[in-house]
Amino acid sequence: MLTASICGDVFASPPVDSILAGIRAVTGPMGCLLIVMNYTGDRLNFGLAAEQARSEGYKIETLIVGDDCALPPPRGIAGRRGLAGTILVNKVAGAAAAAGLSLADVASEAKRASEVVGTMGVALSVCTLPGQVTSDRLGPGKIELGLGIHGEPGAAVADLQPVDVVVSHALKEILSPETNYVPITRGNRVVLMINGLGATPVMELMIAAGKTVPKLQLDFGLAVERVYTGSFMTSLDMAGFSISIMKADQTLLQRLDATTKAPHWPVGSAGNRPPAKIPVPLPPSRLTKSEESLSRPLQLNEQGRILEAAIEAAANAVIDMRDCLNDWDSKVGDGDCGSTMYRGATAILDDMKKYYPLNDAAETVNEIGSSIRRTMGGTSGVLYNIFCKAAYAQLKANSDSAVTANKWAEALEAAIAAVSKYGGASGGCRTLLDALIPALAVLKERLAAADDSSTAFVLSSEAALAGAESTKDMQAQAGRSSYVSAGVLATVPDPGAMAAAAWYRAAALAVMDKYQAS
Amino acid sequence: MLTASICGDVFASPPVDSILAGIRAVTGPMGCLLIVMNYTGDRLNFGLAAEQARSEGYKIETLIVGDDCALPPPRGIAGRRGLAGTILVNKVAGAAAAAGLSLADVASEAKRASEVVGTMGVALSVCTLPGQVTSDRLGPGKIELGLGIHGEPGAAVADLQPVDVVVSHALKEILSPETNYVPITRGNRVVLMINGLGATPVMELMIAAGKTVPKLQLDFGLAVERVYTGSFMTSLDMAGFSISIMKADQTLLQRLDATTKAPHWPVGSAGNRPPAKIPVPLPPSRLTKSEESLSRPLQLNEQGRILEAAIEAAANAVIDMRDCLNDWDSKVGDGDCGSTMYRGATAILDDMKKYYPLNDAAETVNEIGSSIRRTMGGTSGVLYNIFCKAAYAQLKANSDSAVTANKWAEALEAAIAAVSKYGGASGGCRTLLDALIPALAVLKERLAAADDSSTAFVLSSEAALAGAESTKDMQAQAGRSSYVSAGVLATVPDPGAMAAAAWYRAAALAVMDKYQAS
Repeated sequence: MLTASICGDVFASPPVDSILAGIRAVTGPMGCLLIVMNYTGDRLNFGLAAEQARSEGYKIETLIVGDDCALPPPRGIAGRRGLAGTILVNKVAGAAAAAGLSLADVASEAKRASEVVGTMGVALSVCTLPGQVTSDRLGPGKIELGLGIHGEPGAAVADLQPVDVVVSHALKEILSPETNYVPITRGNRVVLMINGLGATPVMELMIAAGKTVPKLQLDFGLAVERVYTGSFMTSLDMAGFSISIMKADQTLLQRLDATTKAPHWPVGSAGNRPPAKIPVPLPPSRLTKSEESLSRPLQLNEQGRILEAAIEAAANAVIDMRDCLNDWDSKVGDGDCGSTMYRGATAILDDMKKYYPLNDAAETVNEIGSSIRRTMGGTSGVLYNIFCKAAYAQLKANSDSAVTANKWAEALEAAIAAVSKYGGASGGCRTLLDALIPALAVLKERLAAADDSSTAFVLSSEAALAGAESTKDMQAQAGRSSYVSAGVLATVPDPGAMAAAAWYRAAALAVMDKYQAS
Repeated sequence: MLTASICGDVFASPPVDSILAGIRAVTGPMGCLLIVMNYTGDRLNFGLAAEQARSEGYKIETLIVGDDCALPPPRGIAGRRGLAGTILVNKVAGAAAAAGLSLADVASEAKRASEVVGTMGVALSVCTLPGQVTSDRLGPGKIELGLGIHGEPGAAVADLQPVDVVVSHALKEILSPETNYVPITRGNRVVLMINGLGATPVMELMIAAGKTVPKLQLDFGLAVERVYTGSFMTSLDMAGFSISIMKADQTLLQRLDATTKAPHWPVGSAGNRPPAKIPVPLPPSRLTKSEESLSRPLQLNEQGRILEAAIEAAANAVIDMRDCLNDWDSKVGDGDCGSTMYRGATAILDDMKKYYPLNDAAETVNEIGSSIRRTMGGTSGVLYNIFCKAAYAQLKANSDSAVTANKWAEALEAAIAAVSKYGGASGGCRTLLDALIPALAVLKERLAAADDSSTAFVLSSEAALAGAESTKDMQAQAGRSSYVSAGVLATVPDPGAMAAAAWYRAAALAVMDKYQAS
């Protein structure tokens, strides 16, 4: 882009000596093009430096850029101000110079570029002048149209408007056939720059860009070849943005696309072929089964009957504990653990009657997850959903034969691992894992010792209860309980762990009942 | 960089269905790496989506990034928050995927990168929550250290400090051997990201970067391989910035340097070899002559005596007109035209006695420009300096023989052209050109008609006076006069034009006197 940039004091033209120093520091035998924004001080100081440098034997060309489209055509000689469109001119000139063109040819390409670019800005706040109290010229709820970047008042002050109204207004001014500031007509190719004025979040600039591109295409019939969005020419702390439109041809696009080491020159996204900015519709799940096709089997097999009994008992245990869980939770959390769990349990009972495919254990676990996801909400809802999803995947991977107690143990292990991974907790963190991890350990141990499976479940459920009770002695490390003092925590078990122990124990006892009955 | 980015509501984790939609929309047979910033909601929702996607047959890996170095090492399981360092991890992962690596290898490179990056932020204002009154938690003159990007309170609130104090504090926290958050030690290579939080001007980010790089080099003994400055991970309207330091090796640098179509990924500037950010000392002028060596010749030749007389007369004419010029200017400008011109004229008389090389007309004109530049100031000072510089260059180009009246005419023409070019005015704009342009026209005409040169000067000076008087009928088109009504302007000539006519006429008459005397 530029070989050197000459800075003045804030909002002031640089002194002649600074400009001369810059020229002398970087000018080689090919010469030097000075690109100057059209402000009186800059014109004069750069002009004087250019004359001085010429008298020292340097080859110097000067280009004055005025791309402002906000003010009516001037009666006077001040002409249009230089604004963000100058950045595009800089890029064209820099790429032309890098391509090895002569000074005269670089100057002529840059001049052509400067003649086909127009800019208009809108400010939502007045800029800061260091060391001065910021002006309250612009009241709240007001915007300034056609502002200057150095704190100059804009062409008009208006009420705050939605961004598409603002964008429409700016585009009409820039492309006005009356002022004819830029020679752009229907069917032309253009590039667009949305320039932040210093204190505008990128997200808001992107919104402005998103509104501008379709308007240029549909309202003005222009092909938007490139879109540059960012803060390229800023004021100080000024909220707002400017829109620059430049007429584009193949040469100009080639200059803009040329690689540069300027750190803030962006990759121009192609406005006509936005790559991933179109809304992505929710694609259908890869699963062929649709949820609507599910229904409760007319006839339950033995495993289905046991599963139904276990789910019913587990849900009812949670329902019965609502007030107790809420009471514990009000001491160590936000008091809604019982209500949240109650919502999930009642939904499970309802849904089970309607459509749980109880003869298929894996799918039933998956449906429990769906019931929870629809109704429970909160962190515990997501955690139980993850729990069911992981158990389902594990059962499904084993689904070639009947679901044995060992397969249930593997499913529980996978479910615990998933909750631990995504929730970040492990044993001892005062969470539901403090009920489930001891239960899993005993379950695996008893099954390995070839215990009867319903006995193994019941023994493991005692470990779950003991584990849940032991949370009284634990320091909370996640969730709201982590802000509660150890003294209070010692009087109350973790409600999430107690709920998990309760449903696990109820399910185990129901399985034992069923086995004894059969 | 990323194939898809899943957005939630402002500061909220995206819903599971949105994440699933993203996974389904972009995941091919190679699989999908989810890069998740370490916040509970994100961990859980992305975790659930990952489990769901896996159960649908997709290959999914998940990486949780926590690069925050602001909080003390957690007793709990929440762990370090994800901050701007995640952007560097994204770039590494994206480049690794683009290089064709397997999902497992991409995930492993990204994980390695996430383990060697640390971030700390400082906010100067609290972020905006759309639809809510912005919190005044942070009072004026306060900064917040170790903030969260979603409006979470920072680790500490402190009084506003100079940027190098803030930078030092942040670097100490990030590189602290006590917390040992990042395994970076003296002699290591690192990359630096200075990230704006949404409402920080690029200039201020650059200042922060400029303070950080030497501290990393000198205080911590690190080689800064790349510097990325910009607003990459922002809060809403938050003023402030974060510093991220990542340990770099050749593989990682290769990933960061790989080209990307992400529009805001910057060209990383090499911190160790800053290209043009070092101060450029004012280089010596190419001219061999130094101003100190100038002195008034002991003996003036005829041309020197005439030049001296002309300059003396011209300067005295301006001095005599001071009050009159000020009076006119107070009606159409800011009332200091006479005083400004007086300053220049008295300096010229002083300097001429001391060191104008009066036997060399070109150099003398150049010295008049220097006297003006030193003393006059304002727009008219620069314009007269440009005038002298251009006349000097023209006289110098013709310096092989004695300076004739024709050469003076050419010098005047070049001077007028330069003032017109850089000042933007032409004839009829109510400026000093309205005296000088008619003078030049008559001078050229009389010389072409072979008039005696002193006669030609005097006749042309009458044209200058008439031209200056005619400015009463002109509309002002530049400077402050352009705001004054035509009725007022009609009673007053342009003071700049009157001053120019006065010195020109005085010089012409002095030349005539000398010729007649000789």
